[in-house]
Order: sequence, then structure tokens, then C-alpha cells
Amino acid sequence: MKCKICGTKAEVRLKSHNIALCREHFLQFFRRRVERTIRRFKMFTKDARILVAVSGGKDSMGLLHLLNSLGYNVTGYHINLGIPEYSDISVDKVKKFHDMTGIPVIIESVVDELGFGIHEVAQKVHRPICSICGMVKRYMINRVAQKFDVVATGHNLDDEVATLFGNLLNWQSDYLARQYPVLPAADGFTKKVKPYVLVSEYESAIYTFFVDIDYVMIECPYSKHATSIFYKNIFNEIEDHMPGTKLRFLKGFYELRDIFPSTTREKLAPCEKCGYPTTAGVCSFCRLKDKLHHA
Amino acid sequence: MKCKICGTKAEVRLKSHNIALCREHFLQFFRRRVERTIRRFKMFTKDARILVAVSGGKDSMGLLHLLNSLGYNVTGYHINLGIPEYSDISVDKVKKFHDMTGIPVIIESVVDELGFGIHEVAQKVHRPICSICGMVKRYMINRVAQKFDVVATGHNLDDEVATLFGNLLNWQSDYLARQYPVLPAADGFTKKVKPYVLVSEYESAIYTFFVDIDYVMIECPYSKHATSIFYKNIFNEIEDHMPGTKLRFLKGFYELRDIFPSTTREKLAPCEKCGYPTTAGVCSFCRLKDKLHHA
Repeated sequence: MKCKICGTKAEVRLKSHNIALCREHFLQFFRRRVERTIRRFKMFTKDARILVAVSGGKDSMGLLHLLNSLGYNVTGYHINLGIPEYSDISVDKVKKFHDMTGIPVIIESVVDELGFGIHEVAQKVHRPICSICGMVKRYMINRVAQKFDVVATGHNLDDEVATLFGNLLNWQSDYLARQYPVLPAADGFTKKVKPYVLVSEYESAIYTFFVDIDYVMIECPYSKHATSIFYKNIFNEIEDHMPGTKLRFLKGFYELRDIFPSTTREKLAPCEKCGYPTTAGVCSFCRLKDKLHHA
Repeated sequence: MKCKICGTKAEVRLKSHNIALCREHFLQFFRRRVERTIRRFKMFTKDARILVAVSGGKDSMGLLHLLNSLGYNVTGYHINLGIPEYSDISVDKVKKFHDMTGIPVIIESVVDELGFGIHEVAQKVHRPICSICGMVKRYMINRVAQKFDVVATGHNLDDEVATLFGNLLNWQSDYLARQYPVLPAADGFTKKVKPYVLVSEYESAIYTFFVDIDYVMIECPYSKHATSIFYKNIFNEIEDHMPGTKLRFLKGFYELRDIFPSTTREKLAPCEKCGYPTTAGVCSFCRLKDKLHHA
């Protein structure tokens, strides 16, 4: 197997693109792909202050590294969820990443905010952990994002395809109408982008490995039975049988997406306690805080 | 496991409906489901002359039997494709079905029409067999259908879900716009309906088995690597993991389907040779005949 560009020994075979590449040309290929995605969807330019949400996993850490190497003005943002073992390892990897690269990273902690780790919070208010965790992360990211022009997340092709498939199985028109690599700034929320939507999880993992970033290998202990993982496995089977399907499926959707009707969203007003945009008088984060205080 | 209706020993478990049923109540359940589909989509009424296209397989033979037992005015239509072994068995089963039930069945033969079996036809004109076979069947069905009010086919839930999924993976908007259990009469073509779209392949097989119809068990020898079979396997995996998904996916699509833009179809005029509606001067069936004559 030889590199398609230079003919030396290939290190990577990309079946969906029907090419093999050496390390150097894979890195070039990967960078160009992400750069093209950034330009194509008008995500940000060199003068934007970009906040990259980093979990400590391969995608977000790779993205932060890549954007920095391309000369973008990036800052990482990590939330310590307070989950025993998993969160300790994650924080540790993020700190090591900062020490190695010098890229600034803001770290905030759910325990500092709410007094408990996210799993304890969920238990105390009798809510599913993934839904509470999502809400708290959104709140904290949106809050810190006020000081930035754009928030970038590491969602990759596999993530987006799994989400799309789930939305299609249930024909969730509203979600379909909103599924896009760019969510414009609105109602006091900062613009959000996903520069990795057209690179696969496999490609992202190889990038992060090649640039020698040490990342969290273990999955969140609460995600084990997630439906999204089931959908990802389904699409890996399909991709194996028909290489290129994931990319064709997602790109085709982006072209057609406008046909999905979306309901008009309720008007937002600042939360009476913290100023966060909300449809209720008090936002769900402040209500959670109150609930925990009285629990 | 007990029948949900009468409490006697159940013979069938329908995971997607979360019920178990005895033979009698399964038959009742199945008949009602198909009847409801016929009414819901306004497929036909008791006075319509219905042509049921029968391949000899479980779905089409079961459908012909079921519609007859419900008091509809049905005639079967079978095409002998001239494929060695497979077609012989199919014709044989269809004839046996007629002898057993007394339901009229018209049998026509590709060899009589074109001088060769469908696999030889494909070879001679250097075209993929499935595409030639589809074209010839459509032509012959449409021709005989002129004497009927409606054509019914045995496409089941699994067939329709596989088709829908394939159309979505490639975002074939035109096909999506047209995928529906009813295709109204237009341009000289008879109305077409699919009364089995909301019953699964599994349920259809059980019906045909319970009413003691002997059907063709083997698949067409040319369908082995068909993509539709791959998609069906994928959805069987999904259904196993999340019972009810196939039905929800297809019904949700029917509700939303109108949003898919379709291109306006070309105007049709009668074929100069046979009168069949076509966009070309001479229809593709007559052109095939010519080609074979000169081959």
C-alpha cells in the first residue's frame, strides 16, 4: 500500500475516499478537509476569538490542536463534571495538553457550581443523568462563550450521522430543520460551529494520534447504553459494505435540509436571577440550583 | 405466553406491537390491519375490479387470498419470467393456488413475449438483469391492468422501509416524493396500491402459513446480493433493539412526505407501435423487442 500523493509507504487507508496516505500527506489531507469545511460553512475567520469546548477526548482535543496549528485564535474550555475516575482522568489530560502546547484552557467545575458531581445532582433531583448533564454543560458553555465570537465543538461525521438517523427514524422535523454545522448567534447566545462534521471518527482519531496528543480513551461511564452508540455501529456496518455512505448521507441532507418545517421558537428573555436567556422567568440552571439547595 | 384477546395458548408473539396472539386472533388482527390500511389510504372498495400481481411468494399469494376472503373482486396475475427452476416452481405454486382456491389467475410468459427467458434477454442486450426485469414486468402489468380498476402488489413494511432508507441515504427527493401506498391513475396507467405496507414480512409470512398456502420459498437467484436485502437486515437489527421502529419510521414518513420536492414528469404519449404511454416515440419494451429481433 503506497501513499497516493508521494508513493512512499502508506500508513493510513481511507476506504471511504478510496485512498491510502503516508503520515505527512494524511495530515495535509485532514487539515485541508477541516479548513474547507470552515470556509464552506463560513464558520469563522482568523480574527475571531474561538472557544473550543474540550471534553478531553480525541475529537475536541484534536480540533483545539488543529485550529491552533492553523493560526486561529483559540481557547479551550473544559468542564470538570465531578464523575469519579472519568472526570479526574479528563481534567488531567486537558492540563497535560495545555502544558504541552501552551494553548490557553479555561477549566470550570460542576462541583464548584452546584456542590455535587453531575451524577449526584441527577440522583438528587430524580432526573436522567444525560439530560441534566446536557443542560448544565450547555449553560456553562453559553455563559463563558459570552466573551468569545464563536464556540467550536468536536462533533464528527459519525456523531452527526447518528443524530441525523435518529431524527429521521422519528421524523423530528424541528430537530432536522436545526441540524447544521453552524448555529448563528441569536437571542444572546454565541454562534456555534462544528468544524469536524465532514471528517470521520476514524480520521479524527488518526489525526490526534499522529500529532501525539494524549487523550481520554475511556468513555463516560454513563454513556454505555446510549442509542447514539447503537446508531454509530449500524452506520459502521453500512460504511463497511458501501464505503462513502456516511459522507454522502450527511452532505445530501445539508443540501436538502431547508425543506423541513420548524416551529417558531418561543421568545427568550433574561433569567431573573442570572441573566441567561430563557423562556421561563428563571432559567433551568438556576431552578436546578434552588432545587439542590432545598433538597 | 397467552393470547392477549382470549387467554388461550398464544402461537405468535409480535414484539413490535408488544402482544402475543393465538392463531384465530392473529388472523383477525392481521385482516383488520390490512382492511384499515385499505380504508385509510382509500385504496379500493368492494365494487372495484382488482388485479393482484403475484410472484408466487408469500406476500403476493397471501394478499390475493386475503382480499378474496374479505369479499373483494380479485384476479391474480403472474408473469413466467423463464428463469430455469425458479420460474418453474413459481408457476407451479401459482397454479396450485388457483386449483385450491378457485381464484382466477392470469398467467403470461416472458418467453412468449420476447422469445427468451429474462436472464437471456438481459445477456443479449448487455443490461443488468434486475433493471430489464423491472421494466418488462412493469410493462406487462400495466398492459393487463388496462382491464382493471386498480393493481395491488404485495410490498410489505420491510420492503417499504428498505426502499425509504435507500432513498434517504441518497436523498433522492423525486423518489421520496412519490413513495406512497397509493399511486393514482394517470397518463393512461391504472391506479396502483400496496395494501401490505403496514404489515411486516414476518406477519405476512405467518398469515400465509396459517391459511395453508404453499408458496415459493426460494429467492430469485439474481436477487442474492441486492442492496434491499442488506437494508432489510439492517432494519431487522434495529427492530430487534427497538421494537416498533419500522412502523414508526414509515408512518412518520407518510405524514411528512409532501415536503419533498419532485420534478415535474415529462409528458407521455402513446407508443407508436403498441400504444403504451411513453416519453419516447417508441416505448422501451418495443425497443427491447426490436433489439432482440436484430441481435
